[in-house]
Amino acid sequence: MTDNDSRIDEVAAAAAAAARPFARTTPRDRGAALVAVADALEAAGPELIAIAMRETGLSEARLQGELRRTAWQLRLFADTIVDGSYLDVRIDLADPDYVIGPRPDVRRMLEPVGPVLNFAASNFPFAFSVAGGDSAAALAAGCPLVVKAHSGHPELSRRTAEIVTGALRDAGMPDGVFQLIEGQQNGVALLKDERIRAGAFTGSTHVGRMLADIAASRPVPIPFYGELGSVNPVYATYADAALLDGFVTSVSGSAGQLCTKPGFLFVPEGSDLGSVTASASAVAEHRLLNPGIGRGFTQRREDVLAADGVTVLAEGEVRTDDAGQTYATPTVVTVDVDTLLRNREALLEESFGPLSVVVRYPDAAALPALHTELFPGNLTSTVHARPEELADGSLADLVDALAQTSGRVLFGGWPTGVSVTPAMQHGGPYPATTSDATSVGTAAITRFLRGVAYQGAPQELLPEPLRDDNPWNVPQRRSEPGLSMSWGSFAR
Amino acid sequence: MTDNDSRIDEVAAAAAAAARPFARTTPRDRGAALVAVADALEAAGPELIAIAMRETGLSEARLQGELRRTAWQLRLFADTIVDGSYLDVRIDLADPDYVIGPRPDVRRMLEPVGPVLNFAASNFPFAFSVAGGDSAAALAAGCPLVVKAHSGHPELSRRTAEIVTGALRDAGMPDGVFQLIEGQQNGVALLKDERIRAGAFTGSTHVGRMLADIAASRPVPIPFYGELGSVNPVYATYADAALLDGFVTSVSGSAGQLCTKPGFLFVPEGSDLGSVTASASAVAEHRLLNPGIGRGFTQRREDVLAADGVTVLAEGEVRTDDAGQTYATPTVVTVDVDTLLRNREALLEESFGPLSVVVRYPDAAALPALHTELFPGNLTSTVHARPEELADGSLADLVDALAQTSGRVLFGGWPTGVSVTPAMQHGGPYPATTSDATSVGTAAITRFLRGVAYQGAPQELLPEPLRDDNPWNVPQRRSEPGLSMSWGSFAR
Repeated sequence: MTDNDSRIDEVAAAAAAAARPFARTTPRDRGAALVAVADALEAAGPELIAIAMRETGLSEARLQGELRRTAWQLRLFADTIVDGSYLDVRIDLADPDYVIGPRPDVRRMLEPVGPVLNFAASNFPFAFSVAGGDSAAALAAGCPLVVKAHSGHPELSRRTAEIVTGALRDAGMPDGVFQLIEGQQNGVALLKDERIRAGAFTGSTHVGRMLADIAASRPVPIPFYGELGSVNPVYATYADAALLDGFVTSVSGSAGQLCTKPGFLFVPEGSDLGSVTASASAVAEHRLLNPGIGRGFTQRREDVLAADGVTVLAEGEVRTDDAGQTYATPTVVTVDVDTLLRNREALLEESFGPLSVVVRYPDAAALPALHTELFPGNLTSTVHARPEELADGSLADLVDALAQTSGRVLFGGWPTGVSVTPAMQHGGPYPATTSDATSVGTAAITRFLRGVAYQGAPQELLPEPLRDDNPWNVPQRRSEPGLSMSWGSFAR
Repeated sequence: MTDNDSRIDEVAAAAAAAARPFARTTPRDRGAALVAVADALEAAGPELIAIAMRETGLSEARLQGELRRTAWQLRLFADTIVDGSYLDVRIDLADPDYVIGPRPDVRRMLEPVGPVLNFAASNFPFAFSVAGGDSAAALAAGCPLVVKAHSGHPELSRRTAEIVTGALRDAGMPDGVFQLIEGQQNGVALLKDERIRAGAFTGSTHVGRMLADIAASRPVPIPFYGELGSVNPVYATYADAALLDGFVTSVSGSAGQLCTKPGFLFVPEGSDLGSVTASASAVAEHRLLNPGIGRGFTQRREDVLAADGVTVLAEGEVRTDDAGQTYATPTVVTVDVDTLLRNREALLEESFGPLSVVVRYPDAAALPALHTELFPGNLTSTVHARPEELADGSLADLVDALAQTSGRVLFGGWPTGVSVTPAMQHGGPYPATTSDATSVGTAAITRFLRGVAYQGAPQELLPEPLRDDNPWNVPQRRSEPGLSMSWGSFAR
C-alpha cells in the first residue's frame, strides 16, 4: 500500500466511522450546523472571492452572487430538514383483520445512505463545489461527505474546506463528517471503496460516464448522481431584436460555461437575425475557466465554423495568453434544419463556452418530432411564443415533447440562472443526468436517503421519528386499522 | 432482422406509442382500471389457481392467499394514486424579492418515466409475476408495461396476461399499455432497446446482476430495480421450543422458496435445539417450483451437509421424480460461530429451498460486529428477545447494525409473509436489491416516476395537477413569495 493508498483508506475509514454518529444527530442540530457553515462562508466572502477570481477568471459580481446562492442553499436545506417532513414517516398500526392477513405494526422512515463522495465542478467554484448543492444535500441528509476538489480552483477548495470543517466542528458535528481529497486518481480509488455508498458529480459527459460506469461495476454497485451534459434547446415562434439580445446575453453569461446555456435557438425561416451581430459584439471578452476548457472550446468552435452550410452571425474572437488561459467573445452561427441534420456530429455536441447555433425552421408543426429525434435528454427546454399562441393550444404537442425529454420546461425567459427552490428540477433524461433525480433544489435530498422499516418494534428501540410520543414532532402519516380505501367510493 | 427481432421491435414500438396517451390518463381512471384488473383476476381465480398448482407445485391455500394479495396490491395502488398525493406537486410562486434574485414561477410534479420492462419471478406466480407488485406500481405510475414471463409458469402467465389486457382495454386504457414476452433472450434484447426506460426484476443474484449490468452499460443507461438475494438472519437471545417451532415453520413455508426465508438463526451457545428435529419431521414433503430450482437446492444442501463442523438437526429428504421435479422436507443444521467463519463459502450463500442454519454464539456482545461483517445487505433482519431485554437498551447496538444493513428490521415474528402496506420496505443494501428502493408496498411507485418542472408556464399549457384551478383536486405544496424560513427561528 502506497502512502497515497493509505491516505485514501484513512479518509474512507473516517467517513465510515462518522456515519452512525452523524445519522443520529437531530435534524434541528444538523440544520443549525448548515446555517453555521453558511454564516462562516459569508463572513469569509471577501477572502474567498479574491481567490476565486484569480483561479477561475469569473467576475466579482458573478462570484458574489454565487456565494450568496451557496449560503442560501445551505440555509434552504436546513429549513428542509428541520420539521422532519423529509423523513417521509409512515406508520401502519397493527390490524388483525387486514384483508390479506393480520398486519403487524410497521413503521418506515428514510435514513441516510452513508458516506457520499462528491466530485466538484469547475464552473461554479462555490455553488457546485466544496460547499455546493450536492454537499449541502448530503450533509442535510445526515451522510458523511468527502469532496473531490476540482483541479481548477485548488486553493479556493482548500480554504473553503477549512471553513466548512471548522464550522461543522464548532457546531458539534462528529469528526469525519466532512473531508476534502484532491486528484482524479484518488477520486476514482475512493469511488471504488466499499465504504462509499453514493456518488455525486457535476461535469463533462465523458468523465461523468466513466465514473458512473465505475460505480455501477463495483462488486457492490452504488447509486451515482452525475450531471453531465445539456444543450438546452430554445424554440421561438418569432425572433425580434429583444429576444435575440436576451439569447446572446444568456449564451455569453459566465462566458457560456453553464450547463444550462442555450446551445440552440430555433427561429422561423426568414427571421431577421441581423441584430445578433451587434448584440454579440457588445459583449466584453471573458476568460475561460482554465486552459483545458479553453483548448476544448477553441476546438469545438473551429469544428462548428468549419461545418458545411454554416453561416456566421457573430464570429467572436478567441485568444490565448502566455499562461495558456483562453479569452473569448461570443460566437453565434446559423443553419437551416437540413444543414443541422446533415452535420449532426459537428453541431450537436455541447459547446462549453460562448457559442450557440440559431436554427431556422420552415415548419413549426415539425418541431415536436425534430426535437424528440435530436434532443432525447436535456436539463432544460424553452418555448418563446406570443401570448395568443400560448393560449390557443397550438403548442401542446411541442410542450409534450419537451416535457418527455427535459427536466425543466421554460416559457419565456432563459434557462441560465437556475433558482434554488422546493420546486426546482435540475436533472433530466440521460445524458443530462445519470439518474432522473434533481441536483438543485430541496428535492435533491432524497438522493442520499433510503427507506428502513421497523416491524413490531418496542417503542424503546425505535428511532425518535417513529415513536408514538414523537419527540422530534415530525409529521407522521398513520394508517389506522380497518381504514376503508378511497377507491371503494369510485370504483365499485 | 429475424422474425423474433421484429416481434421485439413491435413490442417496444407499441409500448413507446402508449407512453403519452397513458401518461395523460387521470389517476382516477387509472385507479379504476387497476381495480378492474383485480376484479377480473379474482373472478378467474379457480381457473388460474388450477393452472398455477400444476405448473408450480404450490398448494391451493397458498395460491389462494397469493391471488388475494395480488388483487389487493392492485387496489392499494389504485388507492395510492387516486388523490394525487403521489405526484408530490410543488408550486413556487414567483417572488421578485427572493434572496438570491427574482424567482420565477416554478411548478414541479412527478411524471411517468415511460415504458417499463418487468422480469417476473418463479416463486410467486401471482404476486411477483405478470400482474404482481412491480406491474401494479408501473401501471399505477402511468408507465406502459412489458412483462417478461417466467419460464416456470408459462400457461399461467399467458392466461393472466389475457385477463389483464382485456380488463385494461375494457376500462378504456390505451392499446399497448400491457404486453407479455417470453424467453430470456427476448428479455435481454428488449432491456437493451432504447424505448425501454426502466427495468424491474425479482430473482437470483446471478441473473439479476447480469441484467443490472446490461441496463447500466446501455448507451443510454436506465434504472434497474432488481430484488436479488437475501439470507435474512435472525438473532435470538433465547431458544425455546416455541421459538424453534416458529423458525422451522418460517423456513419450510412454500418449501423455503421465499426471498425472506430466514437462512440463519443465531442462538446462545448451550441452547437446547432438540425440538428442531421433531418440528422439522412434522413438515410434509413439498415439491420445489421447477426442476432447475430442485437441482440447485439439491446441490446447495449437499454442500452444506458436507461442510466441516456442521451438525445435523434435521436431515430432511430430497427425491426427484421421473418428470425431474424435486420434492423435499426441511433440512436444518447447526454450527458454532467459528465453524461459520471457517466455512463462509459453503454456508453463507442463499439456499433457495427448505434449508437453514442455526448458529450458536458464545457472546451476545459480539453479534453487532459479526452481523456487519457477514451480512452487509439483506431484505430483513430479525431480533427475538425477552420483554425486559427489549426494554433495557442492551440491544441498541445490534438494532443499529441491523438497520444499517437491512431494509426491514423485525422484533419477534418471522420475516416471511410480507404485508403490503404504505410503510412496508422490501429492499435493502446490495445484494438484497440493486437500489435502495422498495418493491413491495405503496412507496414502490416512486421508482417509475421522475420530476419535471415547468417555469413561467401559462395555465393553459400546465398539466392539470399544477394548475391554479386544480381540476384533479390534488394536494399542492405552495411556496408563497416572501415566506420566512423556519431555521430563522432557531439558528440565529
